[in-house]
Formats: sequence, structure tokens, C-alpha cells
Amino acid sequence: MNHMHWPALVTLAALTLCFATVATVGRARGKYGVAAPATTGHEMFERAFRVQMNTLENAVIFLPALWLCAFFFGPLTASALGGVWLVGRVWYAVSYLREPRSRGSGFVLAFVAWGTLMIAASWGVLRGLIGA
Amino acid sequence: MNHMHWPALVTLAALTLCFATVATVGRARGKYGVAAPATTGHEMFERAFRVQMNTLENAVIFLPALWLCAFFFGPLTASALGGVWLVGRVWYAVSYLREPRSRGSGFVLAFVAWGTLMIAASWGVLRGLIGA
Amino acid sequence: MNHMHWPALVTLAALTLCFATVATVGRARGKYGVAAPATTGHEMFERAFRVQMNTLENAVIFLPALWLCAFFFGPLTASALGGVWLVGRVWYAVSYLREPRSRGSGFVLAFVAWGTLMIAASWGVLRGLIGA
Repeated sequence: MNHMHWPALVTLAALTLCFATVATVGRARGKYGVAAPATTGHEMFERAFRVQMNTLENAVIFLPALWLCAFFFGPLTASALGGVWLVGRVWYAVSYLREPRSRGSGFVLAFVAWGTLMIAASWGVLRGLIGA
Repeated sequence: MNHMHWPALVTLAALTLCFATVATVGRARGKYGVAAPATTGHEMFERAFRVQMNTLENAVIFLPALWLCAFFFGPLTASALGGVWLVGRVWYAVSYLREPRSRGSGFVLAFVAWGTLMIAASWGVLRGLIGA
Repeated sequence: MNHMHWPALVTLAALTLCFATVATVGRARGKYGVAAPATTGHEMFERAFRVQMNTLENAVIFLPALWLCAFFFGPLTASALGGVWLVGRVWYAVSYLREPRSRGSGFVLAFVAWGTLMIAASWGVLRGLIGA
């Protein structure tokens, strides 16, 4: 068994989460009468839109960190941290849609997971560069 | 010949499409007098801006799906589906700029291609995880 | 020593830059009183927000170009061009926050680095496809 299947599985879950936030915006367009290309006009639509954008922004910096950690530190550590990130991002999305001010805990959990991935990846990359 | 050149070629085409939608926004800023950092103010600018954002959002979930499918299912299947995605996204961009309500067909075509990439990638990843 | 450590290092730096622009938006929300989910309301907040979005958009097309160039052309060329891109993007971010009209030079530098990455990657991919 190739351990790289685990970060691949985390990646598929992260892509599915991104898609779910996009689908939520699509539904909110219809439900709250915000026709494209507008991105403002109803508080609930704007929440869904911000969740989508924030999830996307975070996925863009998460996926490369996940794979750098997988290749230069270890795929199982990367996948475990990636799982924590996923929990934090789902928590964030659900909380934000209910009440923007409650989004902090999930956001912080995902951020800590991302920061740890970055530190582990940097450790692996720098260790390799100095030939250790 | 390494079959991974084909998903690489699809990736280069997708990046070029992203760049083309960014360039369209840049031109629309001048043409319709929407100075940065504003992102609203003229319907035609807002269409170009939404096309750019939507293309970007979709590229973020497309490229990892393309490469997971290439590595865990097969590079030629991935590249063929990636070609369909490209056709759908170009169709979407051109339609949206003309008339936002006509964007559906290209969007759906690209979405079906992406969904198929995700299913093929998941199949390959899960098959590997259960040791088949 | 594996030369792929160099594009990995450039990627870590690019992710850190993305994070820095996100953190700047977070601080600007508090400083200029723009509560989520709003993304407008104060010129200085809007500058920080546009820098974040533009950095993100560019990172999305930069990272795949960097790695395609690294694998299909050469990791050291890719990393050197990636370093130029980083300098351009930091210059852009700092300039834009001070004065949006001065953002041109850094933007152009990063764009030229990206274009060169795309050309080198395309050369490597096409050379492989024709079996050279």
C-alpha cells in the first residue's frame, strides 16, 4: 500500500468541501434573489459567499502545504493534520452560515493545522537542502 | 513517452484560460472606467469579474482532481476529461460575457467533467487504500 | 541532494506571502471597522482586500507553472524564476497598500517571471510529447 493514498483522500475531501460551499452559494442566489453577477444584496447570501471565498482561499494554501508535508516530512503526519484542517473548515462553514461572529473556533483549529503542516514541510525541505 | 505530459498540457491550457479571464478584467477596468480597487460600477465589468472569479474557483478544484485522476486512475482518462472541462469553461466564459443567463450549458459540461474526474480519482485512491 | 527541494522552498515562501496578505485583511477589518461579511466600506480595507485576492489569483496560476517547469524543464530554472516572481509579488503588495496606482512595476516583474515559467514548461512538455 502506498501511503500517498492518504493525502490523496484528504485532497478529495477538501475538494468536495469546496464544491459544497460553491453549491451553497448557488442555492443562496435563488433563495434570496441575488441574480448573477451581483455578489451583495442579502445578508444570508453574503454569508454563503464569504464562506465560499474563505474556504477557497484557505484550500489554495492548504493543498500545497499538505503535499509538501507528505513528500518532505511524511504522508501519514500530513494526512492526520489534513484531517484536523477538514474538521476545522467544516466547523467554520457551518458556524459562519448560522452566525458570522461564531466562526472563530473552526477557523483557529484549521489555521493551527495549516501552520503545523507548514512547519513540518519547512523542516523536511530545509533538512533536505542542507543535506542532512 | 511519458503519459504524464498530457495532463501537463491540459494544465498549461487551464492556466492560460485563467490568465485570459484576468486579462479580460484588466481591459474591462479601462474600457468601463472602473478604477482599482473597486470591483463594481458597470454591468459589463462585473460580468468579466465574475467570469474571472468563477474560472479561478473552478480551476482550484479542477487541477488537483485532474492530477489525482492522472496518478491514481490513469493519465489519458484524466487528460480526456480535462479537455472536456476546458471546452466547457471556454464556452461558459464566452457565454457569460455575452449574456449571464446563457452561461448554463458550458458550466454544466465542465461540472460533469469535474465530477467524473472526482469519481475516477476516488475509485483509484480507495482501490489503493483497500490494497486491491 | 534532491533539486526538487528548491521549488518546494519557493512554494513555502509563496504560501507564506498568501498568508501575510490574508492576515493584513484581518487586521484591516478591525482597524477600519469593516465587519464580516462586508468587503467594502473603507478605501484602506479595500486595498488590503484587493491585494489578498490578486495575490491569491496569481498564486493559483503560479504554483502549477512552477512545478510543471520544475518537472518538465528543470528545478533550478523554475526556482530562480519563482524567486523573481516572489520579489515582484512582495513589491506589488507593498506598493498597492501605499498607493494603488504604483502597483505596476512589481506586477509586471511577477508577470514576466510567470510568463517565462509557462514558456519553459510548455517547451519541456511539448518536447516530451513529440518524443524528442
